[in-house]
Amino acid sequence: MTDSLRLHGVVPPLLTPLGPDGEVDVASLRRLVRFQLDAGVHGVFLCGSSGEVALLDPGQRGVVVETAVAEVAGAVPVLVGAVDSGTRQVIAHARAAETLGADAVVVTAPYYVQPHPDEILAHFHAVRDAIGIPVVAYDIPSAVGARLTPDLVERLAETGAVVALKDSSGDLAAFREILRRVPGLPALTGSELFADTAVQLGAAGLVPGLGNVDPAGYLRLYRAAAEGDFAAATAEQDRLARLFSITTVADRGRIGHTAGALGAFKAAVALRGVIADARTGPPLLPLDDAETGRIGALLGELGLGPA
Amino acid sequence: MTDSLRLHGVVPPLLTPLGPDGEVDVASLRRLVRFQLDAGVHGVFLCGSSGEVALLDPGQRGVVVETAVAEVAGAVPVLVGAVDSGTRQVIAHARAAETLGADAVVVTAPYYVQPHPDEILAHFHAVRDAIGIPVVAYDIPSAVGARLTPDLVERLAETGAVVALKDSSGDLAAFREILRRVPGLPALTGSELFADTAVQLGAAGLVPGLGNVDPAGYLRLYRAAAEGDFAAATAEQDRLARLFSITTVADRGRIGHTAGALGAFKAAVALRGVIADARTGPPLLPLDDAETGRIGALLGELGLGPA
Amino acid sequence: MTDSLRLHGVVPPLLTPLGPDGEVDVASLRRLVRFQLDAGVHGVFLCGSSGEVALLDPGQRGVVVETAVAEVAGAVPVLVGAVDSGTRQVIAHARAAETLGADAVVVTAPYYVQPHPDEILAHFHAVRDAIGIPVVAYDIPSAVGARLTPDLVERLAETGAVVALKDSSGDLAAFREILRRVPGLPALTGSELFADTAVQLGAAGLVPGLGNVDPAGYLRLYRAAAEGDFAAATAEQDRLARLFSITTVADRGRIGHTAGALGAFKAAVALRGVIADARTGPPLLPLDDAETGRIGALLGELGLGPA
Amino acid sequence: MTDSLRLHGVVPPLLTPLGPDGEVDVASLRRLVRFQLDAGVHGVFLCGSSGEVALLDPGQRGVVVETAVAEVAGAVPVLVGAVDSGTRQVIAHARAAETLGADAVVVTAPYYVQPHPDEILAHFHAVRDAIGIPVVAYDIPSAVGARLTPDLVERLAETGAVVALKDSSGDLAAFREILRRVPGLPALTGSELFADTAVQLGAAGLVPGLGNVDPAGYLRLYRAAAEGDFAAATAEQDRLARLFSITTVADRGRIGHTAGALGAFKAAVALRGVIADARTGPPLLPLDDAETGRIGALLGELGLGPA
Repeated sequence: MTDSLRLHGVVPPLLTPLGPDGEVDVASLRRLVRFQLDAGVHGVFLCGSSGEVALLDPGQRGVVVETAVAEVAGAVPVLVGAVDSGTRQVIAHARAAETLGADAVVVTAPYYVQPHPDEILAHFHAVRDAIGIPVVAYDIPSAVGARLTPDLVERLAETGAVVALKDSSGDLAAFREILRRVPGLPALTGSELFADTAVQLGAAGLVPGLGNVDPAGYLRLYRAAAEGDFAAATAEQDRLARLFSITTVADRGRIGHTAGALGAFKAAVALRGVIADARTGPPLLPLDDAETGRIGALLGELGLGPA
Repeated sequence: MTDSLRLHGVVPPLLTPLGPDGEVDVASLRRLVRFQLDAGVHGVFLCGSSGEVALLDPGQRGVVVETAVAEVAGAVPVLVGAVDSGTRQVIAHARAAETLGADAVVVTAPYYVQPHPDEILAHFHAVRDAIGIPVVAYDIPSAVGARLTPDLVERLAETGAVVALKDSSGDLAAFREILRRVPGLPALTGSELFADTAVQLGAAGLVPGLGNVDPAGYLRLYRAAAEGDFAAATAEQDRLARLFSITTVADRGRIGHTAGALGAFKAAVALRGVIADARTGPPLLPLDDAETGRIGALLGELGLGPA
Repeated sequence: MTDSLRLHGVVPPLLTPLGPDGEVDVASLRRLVRFQLDAGVHGVFLCGSSGEVALLDPGQRGVVVETAVAEVAGAVPVLVGAVDSGTRQVIAHARAAETLGADAVVVTAPYYVQPHPDEILAHFHAVRDAIGIPVVAYDIPSAVGARLTPDLVERLAETGAVVALKDSSGDLAAFREILRRVPGLPALTGSELFADTAVQLGAAGLVPGLGNVDPAGYLRLYRAAAEGDFAAATAEQDRLARLFSITTVADRGRIGHTAGALGAFKAAVALRGVIADARTGPPLLPLDDAETGRIGALLGELGLGPA
Repeated sequence: MTDSLRLHGVVPPLLTPLGPDGEVDVASLRRLVRFQLDAGVHGVFLCGSSGEVALLDPGQRGVVVETAVAEVAGAVPVLVGAVDSGTRQVIAHARAAETLGADAVVVTAPYYVQPHPDEILAHFHAVRDAIGIPVVAYDIPSAVGARLTPDLVERLAETGAVVALKDSSGDLAAFREILRRVPGLPALTGSELFADTAVQLGAAGLVPGLGNVDPAGYLRLYRAAAEGDFAAATAEQDRLARLFSITTVADRGRIGHTAGALGAFKAAVALRGVIADARTGPPLLPLDDAETGRIGALLGELGLGPA
């Protein structure tokens, strides 16, 4: 599937369910993968930011990939985040993912070391040369502190270092510039909130964290947008924007933004009966009962019951 | 040594020499440790930012610690950075370091996940509870994007989560507030450029990356400052500030700040004959010959010949 | 026109033409206003960021407003930026604009003083209470360093402090949240690059700096988008995006981003024969001849000849 | 006094007392100037950030300068902030100050317009060429968003654009680099918290906002440091650091940092009987009674009664 991989559609960045012992809850992950496949997703993305990749050790990453590859069983492409601060570790993650059957790896700019754009380019080339599966560029400046600018994405595409882009920058003008300048590069948006617009403008697909909670919604949105029915896509987007408000129920005076967002996704997926437990990895602190209750109430209002 | 560990003096954050194959150059690392011990350092800090910790894989970290512990042979405390984005990985690094004989681990705030201060606190407590050696707090906002504020350091000290602070914030007012509010906590500065001032104000010691190049200089500075001879300390500081200008010879249009600084440290230590090779880990790009030549010229002017 | 003012359509933020003596070139400004009116704009916005408001003294602001009000002669609403760091000065600018015949003032968050959201709210209320014409909120975090969040815009709208929003944040997700939460508030986008999308999503209008150069283009885009012909709107947007590349011809190693963008707008409008001189106010440095030549060449390629 | 102006010593950035009508309280300002002169200050700085310059209109600035110049009556140099976003307005403020008898003007980088370093340089040169009194460079990145780097300060000094530096960057390493590279340029620190250190390292003087409250304290500190009695200087600094905690009594959930700090300074000076009213200019919100009470209590503990 490697050379012919052409990403498109809804490719949710899957949560990593954890058990009370802090280990990957394999049964829950299987159910989550199955829940997504049943909804019709076009791919799955493991070990992304929504999958708490920055909090997983190599063993956990391996369990996640192995479980997902087995459950997907070739039905759709399996993307795996090879996310780390340095090139060497990213290559190790990427090789492990390839060995376990991933169809592509998803790679951010290096972090902690404040790289120059040419160092970011060298990073992607080194990863690409070290593995036999394609590399997807992952722009997420809020987490890594560096940006994959349109210039840099164009260079990455022209040199064959990457085969696609996942854009979580929130910068629609830059995303659009990439679509214009590098029309041959499939570009997927990580935005939960302008997914309809992105598809209409030429995005190949969607990688919404909220897709964990309501994959059917993003499928409807994607299909409507891809078919040019923008009114329907926008109606769906508006509904999903309302659902996205679960990410703001947590008291920001008590826990961080990441904890609040991922905790809400996990709580919602648990309330829908897909995963057993909403816990997040340390150091992220949990939502409290009242906050979880508000999420449950909103799911009820939106008719999102047990899956 | 654990409970009685009371950090003080010059504790350089050692570079990690790499060979042409990208692996740790063990012989060079031994020589670097010996060079530092011969100069009279009061401790060594492995796997810090100057040690390119963000670019090392777990195997390399192990080789670094094992080599340094063996070479130090109990002469001074060996500190090891247990630096990673999440609590679980930090605990794994910390346990590995403990097993290999480290006397303390040095831990930053979590990164990539944009933690709340209470999550940073939880992180330190979890690490502390998982190991039998002390934890040193490491404030380096330029790399991790979060700050260990005086409030947070005070809470970390009061709850016994950490036994010392390494401050690389560059914020002298905050550092001083910590010295005032938590006088019982040894605080070491990572500043190469106001080391004299920091000691005079009550810092327990110094962790200067430039100490790799000229440990004798920082020893003289520390001793003078600790003895109250501020004029002598400042004269030494002025000389070291001149030496520190090697970190700006690299063309910032071509390589990043981290590459330029660490590459310069490595070039200088190699020119002094202590390590075999100036290469840095990927993705950091190397200095060019002209830049290395300028470093050599400055070493000559300052009389820093072969060690 | 005050109470019935309901902003919509294309409302370009007019450049402030300057003569060799640094004073407002009144004849050029008249021609620029006329050029815009002839193209069919729905309003004009004087003394905005594109009008170099931060570089004009009160006398120049007065000349600008007086000239524009006279030339517009009631044909369309005249908006005037009452932009300054503190409430008192903003009120003075706003009163002056009102006296000179402005239909509304456009107000940013205070700057230099790092205000709390409640202080921003108090600022807008104080301005509103001091004048008899409506206030438009202007979100431009790149210039003022503070953000008008959806929460804050909602409070400003609910309390009647503002009658419209000009959004130059670049954050489409937040803009869309405002459209959803405050549907009664006309929201205009300052984006040159996703104007089509913004209108389609419900934006009342456009405030594109590039509209100085090609108002007809933005009129076509707006009309197409407002009529639901998104394909036509996008085709026009793509052409305008190509034109927008004039903002990047200046060498960023020599002059700043603002100088490069506003200098390019002025050069293009001068090349089209509308204004006499491309000079910008100090301290902004000018484009050089080669850069201006590249702008001329692009105008030629796009068929944008003398107006 | 112009050409021979050589700044040194304690030069407090005076608060601007306001009356219930929002106008400058001239009688209070006179008392504040007198209070400072009686304490022995070496100069006064009007219309700085502590003087709420960003919230004053030109008329108010004039009243402030006129009042201070008259009260000082040549006893010490009078510095006046010519602070604004653009060159033209800064020149206007500077000329007004010169006309009213200022001995020097204090100028920041331009703001709102995101200037290039060469544009900052052009700005200072244009101001210098427009007036007959010297210009002091004012580095305050927290307010203006741009930095006067050591490189830039060196160019400003070499070209004769400025005769001194007021450094409010908080970056001691950079401040020290300036002291080394431009030893002929008097450099004053705006830091309340490492004033002792700055003088010891070669700073010509101090510009502490807290000096409004306790000028005698900073005079003692300065004299001790200048005479080499660092222990005495540090003891005084420690006492002043305790006093500085008044800037943190305000609830940051309710008012901003600037409001909290300047409001505290004004409350303390009012409690000491020097000025009549603690109000700050809009949009800054006031401290509440409980917060003011805590300031009064701390003044009492420190023995700072009616002046």
